Amino acid sequence: MLVCTFIAHGSSFAHRGELRQAKRIVVKLGSAVVTRGDECGLALGRLASIVEQVAMLQNQGREMMIVTSGAVAFGKQRLRHEILLSQSVRQALHSGHNQLKDMSLPVLEARACAAAGQSGLMALYEAMFTQYSTCTAQVLVTNLDFHDDQKRQNLNSTLQELLRMNIVPIINTNDAVVPPPEPNSDLQGVNVISIKDNDSLAARLAVEMKADLLIALSDVEGLYNSPPGTDDAKLIDIFYPGDQQSIIYGTKSRVGIGGMEAKVKAAMWALQGGTSVVIANGTHPKVTGHVITDIVEGKKVGTFFSEIKPAGPTVEHQTEMARTSGRTLASLHPDQRSEIICHLAELLTDKKKEILTANKMDMDLAVNAGHLPPAMLKRLSLSPSKLSSLAIGLRQIAVAAQDSVGRVLRRTRVAHNLELEQITVPIGVLLVIFEARPDCLPQVSALAIASGNALLLKGGKEAANTNRVLHQLTQEALSLHGVREAVQLVSTREEVEDLCRLDKMIDLIIPRGSSQLVRNIQRAAKGIPVLGHSEGICHVYVDGEASVDKVIKIVRDSKCDYPAACNAMESLLIHRDVLRMPLFDQIIDMLRTEQVKIHAGPRFASYLTFSPSEAKSLRTEYGDLECCIEVVDSMQEAVDHIHKYGSSHTDVIITENEDTAEQFLQQLDSACVFWNASSRFADGYRFGLGAEVGISTARIHARGPVGLEGLLTTKWVLRGDGHTAADFSEQGTMKYLHENLPIVQPLVGQRDSN
Amino acid sequence: MLVCTFIAHGSSFAHRGELRQAKRIVVKLGSAVVTRGDECGLALGRLASIVEQVAMLQNQGREMMIVTSGAVAFGKQRLRHEILLSQSVRQALHSGHNQLKDMSLPVLEARACAAAGQSGLMALYEAMFTQYSTCTAQVLVTNLDFHDDQKRQNLNSTLQELLRMNIVPIINTNDAVVPPPEPNSDLQGVNVISIKDNDSLAARLAVEMKADLLIALSDVEGLYNSPPGTDDAKLIDIFYPGDQQSIIYGTKSRVGIGGMEAKVKAAMWALQGGTSVVIANGTHPKVTGHVITDIVEGKKVGTFFSEIKPAGPTVEHQTEMARTSGRTLASLHPDQRSEIICHLAELLTDKKKEILTANKMDMDLAVNAGHLPPAMLKRLSLSPSKLSSLAIGLRQIAVAAQDSVGRVLRRTRVAHNLELEQITVPIGVLLVIFEARPDCLPQVSALAIASGNALLLKGGKEAANTNRVLHQLTQEALSLHGVREAVQLVSTREEVEDLCRLDKMIDLIIPRGSSQLVRNIQRAAKGIPVLGHSEGICHVYVDGEASVDKVIKIVRDSKCDYPAACNAMESLLIHRDVLRMPLFDQIIDMLRTEQVKIHAGPRFASYLTFSPSEAKSLRTEYGDLECCIEVVDSMQEAVDHIHKYGSSHTDVIITENEDTAEQFLQQLDSACVFWNASSRFADGYRFGLGAEVGISTARIHARGPVGLEGLLTTKWVLRGDGHTAADFSEQGTMKYLHENLPIVQPLVGQRDSN
Repeated sequence: MLVCTFIAHGSSFAHRGELRQAKRIVVKLGSAVVTRGDECGLALGRLASIVEQVAMLQNQGREMMIVTSGAVAFGKQRLRHEILLSQSVRQALHSGHNQLKDMSLPVLEARACAAAGQSGLMALYEAMFTQYSTCTAQVLVTNLDFHDDQKRQNLNSTLQELLRMNIVPIINTNDAVVPPPEPNSDLQGVNVISIKDNDSLAARLAVEMKADLLIALSDVEGLYNSPPGTDDAKLIDIFYPGDQQSIIYGTKSRVGIGGMEAKVKAAMWALQGGTSVVIANGTHPKVTGHVITDIVEGKKVGTFFSEIKPAGPTVEHQTEMARTSGRTLASLHPDQRSEIICHLAELLTDKKKEILTANKMDMDLAVNAGHLPPAMLKRLSLSPSKLSSLAIGLRQIAVAAQDSVGRVLRRTRVAHNLELEQITVPIGVLLVIFEARPDCLPQVSALAIASGNALLLKGGKEAANTNRVLHQLTQEALSLHGVREAVQLVSTREEVEDLCRLDKMIDLIIPRGSSQLVRNIQRAAKGIPVLGHSEGICHVYVDGEASVDKVIKIVRDSKCDYPAACNAMESLLIHRDVLRMPLFDQIIDMLRTEQVKIHAGPRFASYLTFSPSEAKSLRTEYGDLECCIEVVDSMQEAVDHIHKYGSSHTDVIITENEDTAEQFLQQLDSACVFWNASSRFADGYRFGLGAEVGISTARIHARGPVGLEGLLTTKWVLRGDGHTAADFSEQGTMKYLHENLPIVQPLVGQRDSN
Repeated sequence: MLVCTFIAHGSSFAHRGELRQAKRIVVKLGSAVVTRGDECGLALGRLASIVEQVAMLQNQGREMMIVTSGAVAFGKQRLRHEILLSQSVRQALHSGHNQLKDMSLPVLEARACAAAGQSGLMALYEAMFTQYSTCTAQVLVTNLDFHDDQKRQNLNSTLQELLRMNIVPIINTNDAVVPPPEPNSDLQGVNVISIKDNDSLAARLAVEMKADLLIALSDVEGLYNSPPGTDDAKLIDIFYPGDQQSIIYGTKSRVGIGGMEAKVKAAMWALQGGTSVVIANGTHPKVTGHVITDIVEGKKVGTFFSEIKPAGPTVEHQTEMARTSGRTLASLHPDQRSEIICHLAELLTDKKKEILTANKMDMDLAVNAGHLPPAMLKRLSLSPSKLSSLAIGLRQIAVAAQDSVGRVLRRTRVAHNLELEQITVPIGVLLVIFEARPDCLPQVSALAIASGNALLLKGGKEAANTNRVLHQLTQEALSLHGVREAVQLVSTREEVEDLCRLDKMIDLIIPRGSSQLVRNIQRAAKGIPVLGHSEGICHVYVDGEASVDKVIKIVRDSKCDYPAACNAMESLLIHRDVLRMPLFDQIIDMLRTEQVKIHAGPRFASYLTFSPSEAKSLRTEYGDLECCIEVVDSMQEAVDHIHKYGSSHTDVIITENEDTAEQFLQQLDSACVFWNASSRFADGYRFGLGAEVGISTARIHARGPVGLEGLLTTKWVLRGDGHTAADFSEQGTMKYLHENLPIVQPLVGQRDSN
């Protein structure tokens, strides 16, 4: 049984991550959340999912309170229906479609609506909460209850008692007995706060009850720096009271009272009283189902109000810096980019001690924590020899950097005096996410620098110390030519999911790690392309004419050299003839010696008297000392099998027959197709690309190991002399030439600055 | 006011599209839908959204009935709660977290649960439907009600009366008085059908009530050809009773009675009775909110049961055929691909009459319908001269086809006897969606054929006749080398959204059309990359040192040659100095003569005594004879402005100063950057690419006008002699060479067959 501990707070939280600890939470539902439906009249589904979330948080042991608006609008809906029925029962029953929307109705009095709506709203809440075995209590308040100290104390102790009994209080203004609320503007004085709208009511209540968190849901995403919809409007993730002057408020929300300015004032008031506040959209159909739980889990939803400004720059600011500095990096001379990379290679050797000390810290922490598997520990650890081979790889990249950005790919004389060039340019801002493998950092940085791209790096928590030192060295190298900020290390606290939402700022995401990581990121990254391998279901096909030695060597290496790698063999396809050869027993013996667990495909199993366990699926990435064996009749059947069950990553044929091999290499539609070589060669360094940013199983842009080339795109440069398209029309005076011109690489470094 | 007409049917519908006409609909909710919650106990939010959809359809004038399961499970939940309370009130109130899940409970009797659940379930339905001003009625039925003719008639007339009064009947078995239901297997006899589970109850009722459509929701996606989760399982979109033998049934669903086999039998029984059936998942959190309305709108959700097999192949089958035939196409000799394209070019001239006759039909239909704007009509119409320039473009592509697939891009000697090649290969299966512009069809087909790709074409309905003829000619040309099926024309009836869901079968989607079309497809295409331009906010910057003649020519051409094109100018940036020159008045005069409506940017407006209307946003794609004018201080400011407000499509500088121009060309980060030439040159044909499949504003894979190159990807071919990665480890015997080898183009056509 899970025992949760929550910290009841006296002062507000500093980070979103701390919100998980909130024990007492006030959820304020704006009238738009409660009443505005998407297609029909009411937002029933939305309300149900909010009730679901509140009940769940309550079940975790938190104390939940709801401040609800919308009784007026709710009552309007109800009274309309009553009026309709009393106007003409027959008409209402038989008129058919849209009677509610189409019939003109008398103007309804707001307080009558409130009274009519209150009971319906409460009944609905109660019916819904009952489904979660959660009790609710209705509390109606008026101005006087907060002005009068005695009444305020009474209210306080009533609510305390309800919370103690695990009941969810549902609070609203008693609108039937007061004048309809109006927008307020006097929230400054602590004791004289008047409850003119539900935002300030919620704030007042949250402070009175010493709540840890106030979640204010309405129909806006949160606080923007300027009115939403204008050219420069950006949603503010974390708002610090000191920054208030930078906000331009827009118009009021459409339903109900309480524009953004009032919301912010109420939020700041709550913040001063020690309650953290998040303002978010509770009407968005796709996210309403988890908006409250997401906020409590610390996700970047809406605007979080915080009193304490964090020390470092925000990730948005880091991205801006990277883009700006990256543009300068792209306009450097290729020699300068090479120099930076060579300097980084030197630093890896010169500062070996610092790096290894930091790595020792990470290793000690990991060993002490004791939860990292040995393979992960091996990836985490650096050694002098790892560092020197890293430096060698970097120097290879430095050479390749000489001829990357600004290379002319195509020149065409479109017409007299009209010349077109296609040149390579950087992609822009890359986000590379890597798990516990710190040697990625200098490799990926070097590739980004060589290709003139800005880079955001997000490393695994386990390698935090090593990564920090390696990043400092990278920035030191970048300083050589004044582009220190082009490579940024993102805090380990940032959620990958939140980074994926920066879709206007990041041009390409490259996840390096498990296929699970890649899949998660592909799901989260809406609008940003993701370059990565989804799965590595690699096959080795042993032909009937294969050499025994090569089969044993290659199968062993493909499976056992590094079973967790994406380019390790997962399925071994054997030609039927091989079953009757001594080779077959040699393969099985070798796999047994190497302790590889064998799963039999259905055909293979049918040939055996005593079969190993049958493979659950022929499409499994074991990623361990396990593999599937299946039998095929021919090379052609092997190709068909791989097309059907493979992931188009890397597939190998072992044969001495060149014709069979060439057929296989030709016909197989995989990123890497090998003849008589281990699948483990599918790797940027082994391919001679210097290093890789990853292996792509995507079919566009880059495929297989991705080095420098995969980080470049192109732009088209046209130089004319007043040419117009109309000149080339049927009535025009000009004709297209479209002559291919020889490619002369021009004065490098002056070509492009992205 | 919208008047909907629905056709009440005697026999089932043939196509999903016809489901919109269904008047009387039975919605069957499996117990998993009603009771299984995602995080807390109950599926309240799910139920609410189902109620919302049913109420909406009812409001459209349809007659809705609900058959609901889940009373047993619902009652279980309720009784548990009661037992908990009676066991220990204090414990339940104060125990904190997860008390419902953690406490062990006595086994409950199913019929008691049903009785307890029934009232709660009905109360919930009623409370929810009341919110939509919709009345409900509870109807409990037993076996006897269907066996006894008199009772059946009574039931029938009661339900008819309820429907007549616009009331939603909610039907369940009266489980309290009958033995608990068991799986049934005797649904064959029409009159002796026993109601043993709610699937057959729903089917029985639907036929009895002559419903047009039965929607059966449970926790499975629909019918699969083999048990879901197995390697080859595919969801069946449309099921024809004759195909029943090809189904392998899996295990029963986890909650409630009624496995897939029973569902199918019930569905077929309803179908024979004249009711169409859709089986779909009602528990998927992302789609439940519109699963019912989607089905009624004819979208591809779940499995649709149809008696009539449509004439042509399904789109899935077309895609399979295209892929298979495309692999053959890819393995042809380049000369053969060229021949096909040349043959198509000839056919465009030879069969001119047929094409123009078909086009005349489309034009007449469009003119008679009268809803197509003149610009669209112009795009729709073909002429002899359009056809001959099409043929010229195709012959250019035929030449380029000689050197596309199987080209060696890189050769590396990795080690002794270990050679690596990177060669070009086709992407795979392309889906090209184009609006009313039939000349796209042969262009795109030729590009696909040249690059060895399979192609699915989806054209606009307006050009249906022309497209059919052009596609026939394309297939005739393809027949020359036995690859007739490599290019498929998808029926205009298919929804683009549904095509986007074929993510395992299509490798790249290329939408050609408005940026709205592109955005819609990008949203719909989860998992398939989309190549297209999102917006074309193109700028022309008039420098202080610009030539008057060139400015007038280029600005006029950029804006007025074809204002709806994505490469037309939307914003004109003017250097501040120009304001004081006669050139300024000449520009304004020209724009007035051309009837271009001017919107002033804020700075431009501040300079004028009488300003035109201010631009609402500097980021607007007018797509019409309108443009925005803004003033900048320098070329650098122009670059910054374009980076901030542009869409990185095409941007132009007009200046006589070469240094300024080169700086602009270098610094600006757009797909196309032009000097002294009209923005309208951003076009594949004008660039000399022969034709284009579109213009890409994406930053990866392809950028700007996309011709042949953009339809190719690469694969890596490694030829070894038993090499293993371990050979190259520190302890190994081999060293990497990584020598670049000269590229010798090999015996073409034998390189690759994708």
